[in-house]
Amino acid sequence: MKNEVMKLISKLNELDHKMYGTDFFLTWEKNDAQINATLLTAKILKSLYEENYSCKLFKSGLAISNFRDNSTRTRFSFASASNLLGLAVQELNESTSQIAHGETVRETANMISFLSEVIGIRDDMYLGEGNKYMHEVADALDDGYKNGVLHQRPTIVNLQCDIDHPTQSMADLAHLIDYYGGVENLKGKKIAMTWAYSPSYGKPLSVPQGIIGLMTRFGMDVTLAHPEGYNLIPDTLKVAEKNAKKSGGSFKHVNTMEEAFKNADIVYPKSWAPFSVMQERTTLLKKKDLDGLKNLEKRCLENNAKYKNWECNEKMMKLTKGGKALYMHCLPADISGVSCKEGEVSAKVFEKYRIETYKEAGYKPFVIAAMIALAKVKDISRVLGSLRKKRFAE
Amino acid sequence: MKNEVMKLISKLNELDHKMYGTDFFLTWEKNDAQINATLLTAKILKSLYEENYSCKLFKSGLAISNFRDNSTRTRFSFASASNLLGLAVQELNESTSQIAHGETVRETANMISFLSEVIGIRDDMYLGEGNKYMHEVADALDDGYKNGVLHQRPTIVNLQCDIDHPTQSMADLAHLIDYYGGVENLKGKKIAMTWAYSPSYGKPLSVPQGIIGLMTRFGMDVTLAHPEGYNLIPDTLKVAEKNAKKSGGSFKHVNTMEEAFKNADIVYPKSWAPFSVMQERTTLLKKKDLDGLKNLEKRCLENNAKYKNWECNEKMMKLTKGGKALYMHCLPADISGVSCKEGEVSAKVFEKYRIETYKEAGYKPFVIAAMIALAKVKDISRVLGSLRKKRFAE
Amino acid sequence: MKNEVMKLISKLNELDHKMYGTDFFLTWEKNDAQINATLLTAKILKSLYEENYSCKLFKSGLAISNFRDNSTRTRFSFASASNLLGLAVQELNESTSQIAHGETVRETANMISFLSEVIGIRDDMYLGEGNKYMHEVADALDDGYKNGVLHQRPTIVNLQCDIDHPTQSMADLAHLIDYYGGVENLKGKKIAMTWAYSPSYGKPLSVPQGIIGLMTRFGMDVTLAHPEGYNLIPDTLKVAEKNAKKSGGSFKHVNTMEEAFKNADIVYPKSWAPFSVMQERTTLLKKKDLDGLKNLEKRCLENNAKYKNWECNEKMMKLTKGGKALYMHCLPADISGVSCKEGEVSAKVFEKYRIETYKEAGYKPFVIAAMIALAKVKDISRVLGSLRKKRFAE
Repeated sequence: MKNEVMKLISKLNELDHKMYGTDFFLTWEKNDAQINATLLTAKILKSLYEENYSCKLFKSGLAISNFRDNSTRTRFSFASASNLLGLAVQELNESTSQIAHGETVRETANMISFLSEVIGIRDDMYLGEGNKYMHEVADALDDGYKNGVLHQRPTIVNLQCDIDHPTQSMADLAHLIDYYGGVENLKGKKIAMTWAYSPSYGKPLSVPQGIIGLMTRFGMDVTLAHPEGYNLIPDTLKVAEKNAKKSGGSFKHVNTMEEAFKNADIVYPKSWAPFSVMQERTTLLKKKDLDGLKNLEKRCLENNAKYKNWECNEKMMKLTKGGKALYMHCLPADISGVSCKEGEVSAKVFEKYRIETYKEAGYKPFVIAAMIALAKVKDISRVLGSLRKKRFAE
Repeated sequence: MKNEVMKLISKLNELDHKMYGTDFFLTWEKNDAQINATLLTAKILKSLYEENYSCKLFKSGLAISNFRDNSTRTRFSFASASNLLGLAVQELNESTSQIAHGETVRETANMISFLSEVIGIRDDMYLGEGNKYMHEVADALDDGYKNGVLHQRPTIVNLQCDIDHPTQSMADLAHLIDYYGGVENLKGKKIAMTWAYSPSYGKPLSVPQGIIGLMTRFGMDVTLAHPEGYNLIPDTLKVAEKNAKKSGGSFKHVNTMEEAFKNADIVYPKSWAPFSVMQERTTLLKKKDLDGLKNLEKRCLENNAKYKNWECNEKMMKLTKGGKALYMHCLPADISGVSCKEGEVSAKVFEKYRIETYKEAGYKPFVIAAMIALAKVKDISRVLGSLRKKRFAE
Repeated sequence: MKNEVMKLISKLNELDHKMYGTDFFLTWEKNDAQINATLLTAKILKSLYEENYSCKLFKSGLAISNFRDNSTRTRFSFASASNLLGLAVQELNESTSQIAHGETVRETANMISFLSEVIGIRDDMYLGEGNKYMHEVADALDDGYKNGVLHQRPTIVNLQCDIDHPTQSMADLAHLIDYYGGVENLKGKKIAMTWAYSPSYGKPLSVPQGIIGLMTRFGMDVTLAHPEGYNLIPDTLKVAEKNAKKSGGSFKHVNTMEEAFKNADIVYPKSWAPFSVMQERTTLLKKKDLDGLKNLEKRCLENNAKYKNWECNEKMMKLTKGGKALYMHCLPADISGVSCKEGEVSAKVFEKYRIETYKEAGYKPFVIAAMIALAKVKDISRVLGSLRKKRFAE
């Protein structure tokens, strides 16, 4: 094991994170030691993997994935993370159109968990529902564990809910830390989390909410920008404000992409649907009002179309610090002239930063693995430090 | 390894079960040594798991699941069992509407088995077909193994057919043994396997058939109750009668829930469709007569509705021994006012026994693992006794 | 380890195959050392498996399968191969109706590969597209690996494209080698790759193309036979001609089954759609012209019906050498009176060779495993020679 990794393990060992036996729902529910422990563990696992160490902390056990919305990237990240730790993925396929509650959730949560170590859930379709559902599952698991139904309490990893997308924002953060050579170098960096035009509608709010909620913790100057009406869940702005104050950074809220991009070190232009639309959509979905949904989509796309100038292109990038801010995206991006006629980002800008966005995504498997490992392995730093086997014969 | 587990392994070692190289179709095809070996092995695996031993008897190998009907509980139980033993699950997805026979079955059975150790099959939709299909697969595997196509003969585990649901009934039995502190304490216990009202139709007969076929072997007084016409497959009643006679228990057949509940130690109220309806349904399904099926469903639901008083509620429970019989269910139950307006069990009764039903389900992964282990590992007691590795670093 | 296996490993060690870090697209892109290394490694793995050695070359890692067309046999072969080597399968489900290109392919290829060792792709639906798609994925992986996005470069295994079906033809070849007791005994054997009647249309060309492209390399006399108009991709015939010339065998092209069968040692009667039809079909599929597709199917089936006499039956088999040529098929075959009214082969002929066709299929998991192992393990002969652990306790 390289010296550098051993140092990271020592640092992890010094953190009083108390994450054993916990779940990961929202980054702002985690204290700084916990965020740091997650970042450190992700980096340790990535380094060990790259040194070809086997990171199988488990000899058996299931990792359950419950995707209530489509996913390729996060699905593979979760599968990779589970496999890295020695767990086998079993997918729980529920009908996405169904919002299960009460006894069904409680029972299913226990029935799938007799030999499971983690349940990864994506539920981002319904505002006010996704995070709530995850907590219902958590309560059911607590109940089952307390009553002797379950021998072990699986940890829950939020793979995107209506409020936050912590595995994404933490991967984004890990990317920034590596890009700038250390978390201490993020202080004072200006990041623009801005809305961008997309010819689709109903994109979740969890990414921008997650970004402003997390990046404000590191002394960064965070600017949120969107056209009037494209508001996020109000509470998440309060989180950002509070975090910024505490960390010595700032949080600003503006109405043009230009203002946000001006002098930015980092830009994160991404489409989302207005909070109010997501609320209306949830109501219509619950009522199965297909006509209403069609109508809502039409209205929204018409409204979106007014803001086609919210595109991250070369002209816009010139406004950033030295004209060379780092472009970020959770992927897939709506690339003008490539994946759509007019979209979030011009082909030229995207191509310039394409490899960086791929690298950004590459942290996600290790962030997820870190969340699982911290929650499930009591003495994680000792266990990581004692890994000796190689992943394959060299 | 705890002393208690080592004693169980010694007991297993003394049984002349001869299960190596066999399949598990129906409990009444197994002799007492075999039933006991399955129960013992399940308990040993559960204990070892709870002591955090790795139970990986295999370093590689596939476990194939073939669910010709929907399943969440059994799917996860099979996945858990396979993973526990070191096997990777690969699902065989056939169209459920198709009853494959002959060359297709023979060929597919071999094609999926080159490196497979177990095939778990659920096929409970068609009366007269499910069990027959499993035997066709078994014959195909015998043929392939004998002719040198397959290096090893995968064992078949019946994950529910038209006749029996052995992984369920064995898990139920394991639960009773633990609940009463030993198989010897089941002698003389009165169990009521009764029909209950449900607003759905077409529920398989395999659970009640499995219960009367298995519980009669342990000196229990088994009462089967259902409204007139809701008969089970006649042969399964003969099995129950024969078993009861041999074990010194009894088997009674009554027409009211009240009579069955009277003085019962254990009640198992569960809906099913009449034998004759399932026969008619199979004929219609084969003919793809959708109108006929719709008509049959309508008639059946109307008939069901006459028996809404077949609900396991507090008043009914008062009839049982001391008013506190153990309530059992294979889950999910139709709970009045919770999962349906009127159902098999009142919310109050269900809630009282909810945790017990969850625990009941918790034996299934280990019962399935036991069936696989006994069929595939020659010297199973020695191998279990020599497990030393832990499932994860502690 | 048996002496015989150790000799095979020594032989492998002597081959200068340079397959580490490569992909497997078409057999005729591989030199003789590479074909031999693949055959040898497959045989070594099969032997080790049959001696109950664990062949887990990896402790973790994903094996991604991307089936853009239905598959049971190859799906299970890929799953078996991956499991044998210690990899966990994760399926990538794309809509089969969609021909993804450009940025989508490039991005997805990287997003699924952060911890992946192999991507197995079946894409045989669209003439001119399948192989091209695989190369797009390969280029994307090269790009990601070169730019530091991927820590390891997953190898690509062609699980059937529009041009070749290398895992099938290599399994067929392995079967022939075992059947005749050595590759040297194939010299001078006459093999008839002939079209056969089937009541379905649109069957891919990759099997006959793969067979004539591969079998011509071993000094065999290969005859291709089909009704007028049922041409293969012209380039593949050129490959066959070139190979035959080089190997000292021959390649002949005839228009009747009878001529091909005459004096043949081996017959491979199998239906396919004419090259021109597959081209037209691709065009129509791209245009989503459902009426055009229906019309094309009708025309083709009518045309097929003219050649119902292209059936491999006893009368036809009498023409072969001593009346006892080896019958081969990639399965499933259209068996007259069994799987269809009139088909590729009579029930009597098929039944006589059924077990042989099953054995033929049984090489596929090991051929796939060999392709993965050679591409991913640097010093494969040393690593295979050092395997010591058993797959399960004996």
